[in-house]
Amino acid sequence: MRPGLRVAVVGATGMVGRVLLERLESRRFPVGELLPFSSGRAHAAVRFRGRRLAAPAPSPEALRSADLAFLVSSDEIALEWGKDLARRGVWVLDDSAAFRMDPSVPLVIPEVNASELGPERRLIAGPNCTISGLAVAAAAIHRRAGVRRVRMASYQAVSGAGREALLELFGQTRRAARSLADSEPLRPLGPEKARALPAPIAFNVFPQVGRFNAEGECSEEVKVRGELRKLWGAPRLALSATTVRVPVVRGHSVAAWLELARPLAPAAAARLAASVPGVKVWKEGTYPTPRAAGGGDPVHVARIRRGAAPSELALWVVTDNLLKGAALNSIQTADALLEKGWLRPRRAA
Amino acid sequence: MRPGLRVAVVGATGMVGRVLLERLESRRFPVGELLPFSSGRAHAAVRFRGRRLAAPAPSPEALRSADLAFLVSSDEIALEWGKDLARRGVWVLDDSAAFRMDPSVPLVIPEVNASELGPERRLIAGPNCTISGLAVAAAAIHRRAGVRRVRMASYQAVSGAGREALLELFGQTRRAARSLADSEPLRPLGPEKARALPAPIAFNVFPQVGRFNAEGECSEEVKVRGELRKLWGAPRLALSATTVRVPVVRGHSVAAWLELARPLAPAAAARLAASVPGVKVWKEGTYPTPRAAGGGDPVHVARIRRGAAPSELALWVVTDNLLKGAALNSIQTADALLEKGWLRPRRAA
Repeated sequence: MRPGLRVAVVGATGMVGRVLLERLESRRFPVGELLPFSSGRAHAAVRFRGRRLAAPAPSPEALRSADLAFLVSSDEIALEWGKDLARRGVWVLDDSAAFRMDPSVPLVIPEVNASELGPERRLIAGPNCTISGLAVAAAAIHRRAGVRRVRMASYQAVSGAGREALLELFGQTRRAARSLADSEPLRPLGPEKARALPAPIAFNVFPQVGRFNAEGECSEEVKVRGELRKLWGAPRLALSATTVRVPVVRGHSVAAWLELARPLAPAAAARLAASVPGVKVWKEGTYPTPRAAGGGDPVHVARIRRGAAPSELALWVVTDNLLKGAALNSIQTADALLEKGWLRPRRAA
Repeated sequence: MRPGLRVAVVGATGMVGRVLLERLESRRFPVGELLPFSSGRAHAAVRFRGRRLAAPAPSPEALRSADLAFLVSSDEIALEWGKDLARRGVWVLDDSAAFRMDPSVPLVIPEVNASELGPERRLIAGPNCTISGLAVAAAAIHRRAGVRRVRMASYQAVSGAGREALLELFGQTRRAARSLADSEPLRPLGPEKARALPAPIAFNVFPQVGRFNAEGECSEEVKVRGELRKLWGAPRLALSATTVRVPVVRGHSVAAWLELARPLAPAAAARLAASVPGVKVWKEGTYPTPRAAGGGDPVHVARIRRGAAPSELALWVVTDNLLKGAALNSIQTADALLEKGWLRPRRAA
């Protein structure tokens, strides 16, 4: 093996997995040996550094031999391997929801709360893709002015729901495209069945991500509240979200309102947002869109302006849900572990 | 001519115009004679009651001979004809933004503020299509519990931006559909130019409807605040909107948060919403989508639940932007004038 880390990736054949491998390569992350695994299916394969590698179902021996394991798969896979591997000394970066709210597991975005990392905290969770952008964009605003209440409406890309959902969008779009009539633009599109998603998504939007609880919130809405509280260390933060799926391939957008404990002018908020690494603040009258921002690393922030209450800001945030929302954040956390010296590349084969 | 009203429609060949003619017919509105006009283009035609009618550019003589004129065209057309016709005794129902904020002109949704109508108030404005749904859905909630502050994020259909915008969505969708690859679902869609809209709309969303002002708000966001204040007679209502275009053909959706002066349980709010004519309240765990609700009359309300502040409700509202957002509302206002006896069908030819 090359000098570097022995890196396992569980879920390497999924959408986040493929993006993760691409970024490990393009960022020259010190991978000595890559151990790619599927989430269970046999006969899968991935490409890395120009080579085709088999991605078998995870095996305990191989996983436990890794220095670092990226879990980019299901909650079930994470529950099966996360604590076992960490106990055996493997650094585990989990992108599932399994451990995010576990008090013994740090939930980390390095630009926001790298201080949660520790030499013996080997199991580390990454946040939900819908909250990661806002958590980064407003981190410095929160530290300066104290965010008390958040209202947020999301515009979530279909890739966040997985490959089958994306293929469902494609199929529905192709069927609808055949019936779009320029001469009769209001002709109804007709009924459409949904299987991977809870409602048709082509030429549609729907306010459901996950399942509804007894209070009428869906699981994504519960997640973003709990996770932002943990990421910011703000247990009493009030947050109400409406999470909505939109027919976008890649890139989650959020329209948010932040009620602050102390007044903060929009221009000062923009400067604070721009002070956070990885944040790109757009100048007034301009804004990012998911189609343009998807596939890129930055957290994009725009339209910072006064909200409805005296000390309130409104803003628009766009982030690639697969990158800063998942794979990129995990790599950046691994970078932080390397910098600390807690995670060390091996010298030789 | 048949017994009934002499009805002029200016903008009859546009999208709202066509929907208006369809609904005048299907609702058996007492049209004795229809005088359809284009917004200026010659040689246009429309269909009404199975007949093809020429829709020439508006002529003063014909317009002034009408009992009732629906203006479903531009602000410019409304400014040219609105006050002139009303002064000459024609009832004018204007769907443009030209007179909505004019203190001498009532801005009316019949279910909300029919009391603003009067026997001599012959020029009547209809509201912006983005606020009409929420204005109806929350009218009774506001009367009972006093809405103090509104935050709202919109998901606006492309038909609200006109026919050219819709054809732009269709063209971009067809081009993108050719490059969608099931084997490589994350392949970038490539750059796309926008002409009718400010940014590409296929597989995209963007937070701009209208133009930006010096405070960083776009004109749609300014409109919804001013219009909701006027519709509800609540001049001090605080409202912050983020208005966003989404790749939907028909049907505007809104995620809103209502901060109330007095506490109101979600179940009580649902009963109040359902008490307003034309409102359909969806039961918990279910919701409308624009694709399903587009083309229909109701104001759909769902997901009524607690918000981020102690006396706050969150909700989801979907309305057809061309119907309750424009044409249907004007017809309902005309119905109210007929009921009052201020507008009277002619007996004979």
